Amino acid sequence: LTIVGYRHALVSPASTRFAVLASGSGTNLQALIDARIAGLAVVISDVSDSGALLRAREAGLPAEFVPHGDDRIRNTELVCEVAIRHGAGALVLAGFMRILGPAAIRAFPDRIVNIHPSLLPAFPGVDAVAQALAAGVKVSGVTVHFVDEQIDHGPIIAQRAVPVLPEDDVDSLHARIRKEEHDLYPRVVRALITGRLTVKERRVIWS
Amino acid sequence: LTIVGYRHALVSPASTRFAVLASGSGTNLQALIDARIAGLAVVISDVSDSGALLRAREAGLPAEFVPHGDDRIRNTELVCEVAIRHGAGALVLAGFMRILGPAAIRAFPDRIVNIHPSLLPAFPGVDAVAQALAAGVKVSGVTVHFVDEQIDHGPIIAQRAVPVLPEDDVDSLHARIRKEEHDLYPRVVRALITGRLTVKERRVIWS
Repeated sequence: LTIVGYRHALVSPASTRFAVLASGSGTNLQALIDARIAGLAVVISDVSDSGALLRAREAGLPAEFVPHGDDRIRNTELVCEVAIRHGAGALVLAGFMRILGPAAIRAFPDRIVNIHPSLLPAFPGVDAVAQALAAGVKVSGVTVHFVDEQIDHGPIIAQRAVPVLPEDDVDSLHARIRKEEHDLYPRVVRALITGRLTVKERRVIWS
Repeated sequence: LTIVGYRHALVSPASTRFAVLASGSGTNLQALIDARIAGLAVVISDVSDSGALLRAREAGLPAEFVPHGDDRIRNTELVCEVAIRHGAGALVLAGFMRILGPAAIRAFPDRIVNIHPSLLPAFPGVDAVAQALAAGVKVSGVTVHFVDEQIDHGPIIAQRAVPVLPEDDVDSLHARIRKEEHDLYPRVVRALITGRLTVKERRVIWS
């Protein structure tokens, strides 16, 4: 069955519930679980045996494996459909290693957030921590931003600086950054789902 | 009189004295003066009535106006010659709005430092503070770096993060950044001239 125009019909419900999307071990998911934010509707992963899905099940949350194929449009649809089916009005990316297509941004306008281990716009893309070390910066950090159609580019919601120490390698610096992530992300998600974030041009205003 | 190869013969003296180069009001120069760092040999400006030259004269320091023409190679030579004549073994750029040519980098290898009002590599070039505001970042800062042949690019010596507040405009944010500059730059210059900074690939090690 094919419905013409279906791909443009994905619309998130008006809801303060949210889906968490994660591919990896799910430490940011765990921080959101531990913060007991009301409205965590479902955890979605593209990796069937990810730590994220395990953590979700352990927390008694719906955990959905959505396999990723070659068709990004279809992948995006599937993820959005699962999120919407669980009543999510927002998508929280927590180490989700897939790129969502434009349909997701249309379906969840200013309702998709991502966390990135650098002070954007510095060091977008993969291996941000290694990039920062290679560049020799003395300060790096973490950014939470709205997702737009460019990678690691949307309006910045919150940032925290993290010092780079002389003896740092990727692991030690990433661990220091993660500590800030786990404190920051629950605050931002709570602000998002309670409607406290407004985007005005490129600036995000907290109310 | 033309001496063949002269342009490559500029060599800084082995010296812990330094020249400060400034085009503007000279607030970073004033911070260096106030920190009473031994070795401030001369203040050089390309602007005859700059605040920097005035501050130098008030502090009883040699103050040299070096007019800038169209020939960057000659401009670079002139600045280096004046610095070397005053016994400077290092160049400290403090709001110097001219680009020094390769001869300066050869003459003062890893002995030219600059201060920039952003967390490089974010927002290089002019209007860094306005760039940061337009990008909507929540954290900006200040960078002190060695000068290489690319603009705002050389190895990073020190950085400090500065928060961007919701009500900030360019003036208020720049003022907050300058406060950090005035504390940071004297510390870096003292480390530089006492030989505590080593460059290893892109990383600067403090000893």
